[in-house]
Amino acid sequence: MSLAHRLRAAQDDTQTALDAALAPFDGPVGAAMRYASEGGKRLRAFLVLETSALFDVPRAGALRAAAAIEAVHAYSLIHDDLPCMDDDDLRRGRPTVHRRWDEATAVLAGDALQTLAFEQLAGHGTDPDPAIRAELVLTLARAAGAAGMVGGQALDIAAETADEPLDIDAITRLQRLKTGRLLEWPCRAGAILGRADPAPLLDYARHLGLAFQIADDLLDVEGDAATLGKATGKDAGAGKATFVSLLGTAEARRRAEALVREAEAALLPFGARAASLKEVARYVVDRDR
Amino acid sequence: MSLAHRLRAAQDDTQTALDAALAPFDGPVGAAMRYASEGGKRLRAFLVLETSALFDVPRAGALRAAAAIEAVHAYSLIHDDLPCMDDDDLRRGRPTVHRRWDEATAVLAGDALQTLAFEQLAGHGTDPDPAIRAELVLTLARAAGAAGMVGGQALDIAAETADEPLDIDAITRLQRLKTGRLLEWPCRAGAILGRADPAPLLDYARHLGLAFQIADDLLDVEGDAATLGKATGKDAGAGKATFVSLLGTAEARRRAEALVREAEAALLPFGARAASLKEVARYVVDRDR
Repeated sequence: MSLAHRLRAAQDDTQTALDAALAPFDGPVGAAMRYASEGGKRLRAFLVLETSALFDVPRAGALRAAAAIEAVHAYSLIHDDLPCMDDDDLRRGRPTVHRRWDEATAVLAGDALQTLAFEQLAGHGTDPDPAIRAELVLTLARAAGAAGMVGGQALDIAAETADEPLDIDAITRLQRLKTGRLLEWPCRAGAILGRADPAPLLDYARHLGLAFQIADDLLDVEGDAATLGKATGKDAGAGKATFVSLLGTAEARRRAEALVREAEAALLPFGARAASLKEVARYVVDRDR
Repeated sequence: MSLAHRLRAAQDDTQTALDAALAPFDGPVGAAMRYASEGGKRLRAFLVLETSALFDVPRAGALRAAAAIEAVHAYSLIHDDLPCMDDDDLRRGRPTVHRRWDEATAVLAGDALQTLAFEQLAGHGTDPDPAIRAELVLTLARAAGAAGMVGGQALDIAAETADEPLDIDAITRLQRLKTGRLLEWPCRAGAILGRADPAPLLDYARHLGLAFQIADDLLDVEGDAATLGKATGKDAGAGKATFVSLLGTAEARRRAEALVREAEAALLPFGARAASLKEVARYVVDRDR
């Protein structure tokens, strides 16, 4: 099956899992949760499903972990788009939640999507062994919290009012937290569900995560807003230091390519079984959205 | 030991547990998390500790569950106080988080406090049995999410723009979700940690929760802002239906008293061991803050 087919299957199956998880919730907050959980590349879900497949994890359980990480991702985007944060009007080609509804609904829908992620992981369907479920909860909480993603968002906000622009080490640290931790967790989850050593997959995920962010910075400069479904040129407009502003586009692209090769190398122990994980590392830097 | 002493011990020990959990977090978001986690009556923590004590649960594990529910409570207050929600300047006698820092920091600190709650519960120190830890996560997620507390907050927001004021059934339903679920969960947690049937404690908690809310509405009318540490007269000023506006102060007080007697009756199976839980039900309607 081609990468495109496998990505599509991950998207469809994850949406089905999210729809089922969100079905009980009504009113504007329930509708906003569903709206925010639609679309997207589902890269994080794909990483859960593909790393789980390396260890023959039953797909039904892996899909609950995939739904959980996409719920956290959706929550982070809703709150990140708020007027007091990035103040974005467009996300995935549609109005952001606070534009479509209002800020209060956006705050609550984000809050409840985060809660839903932990409910998904702790539920019996994720794995028959409660130690596995508790470990998934613990590791996702560490990845998403103040020492993980939220910590990266806080560094991002602090950078906006700092006197000096960030240097390459500071940007790298910020991105490892802000986007890296939520790209690492899916690979860790596959290993946890598969009762496997997470080390090689985390090595893969760290290189992939940084390549992903450099590609994101390149898209903000070179990408097409209509294809991306969000505004471009925002970072330069805000005078924000990025991998591209610090390294230039040519060097940024060179580094992204090098990171893809390192990500691929980390998969060597898995041989041909990891073919689609290798392909997706390539896709991450070649994508147009 | 008197109720006042036991409440004070719960406050001190829970603060110590929260301080330890929050120690790793730095920057403004870490500081805002610590600030928001300070003070308060710690009623929810007290309920975890006292119901756990009924079943001789080790206090160290119960304290992690107590810290978790207080973290969720603190997160909900930070987000509830935001300008797009209740727009409050004062909380526990101090500026609210978005007034002391800014809205972005308040959103992130609330987000990370929610995450921290699940990290606390899933951590090994909560209970040696991972099935217990997973069950605590699952039940707290259900209590806090879109079918629980956040669902109640959504009903509250909807009521503000509704044509008709809420009637007593609608107010009761709203409050059972908005404040009731987070008062039930501590009692459920005690039973889960104690490997006991939660039914009698949930019966107690439901009556206590409603009595608590009626007392809150009475304090909004009759209380002293300085003692409360927050503004009074807000509900009447906003033309908001409350138990007091619908029933009058005399009937509201009569109902709160009846609920306390029902809460006390639910504790009969536990005899003298439940003395402080009985006392706290009385305290909930007699408090001045």
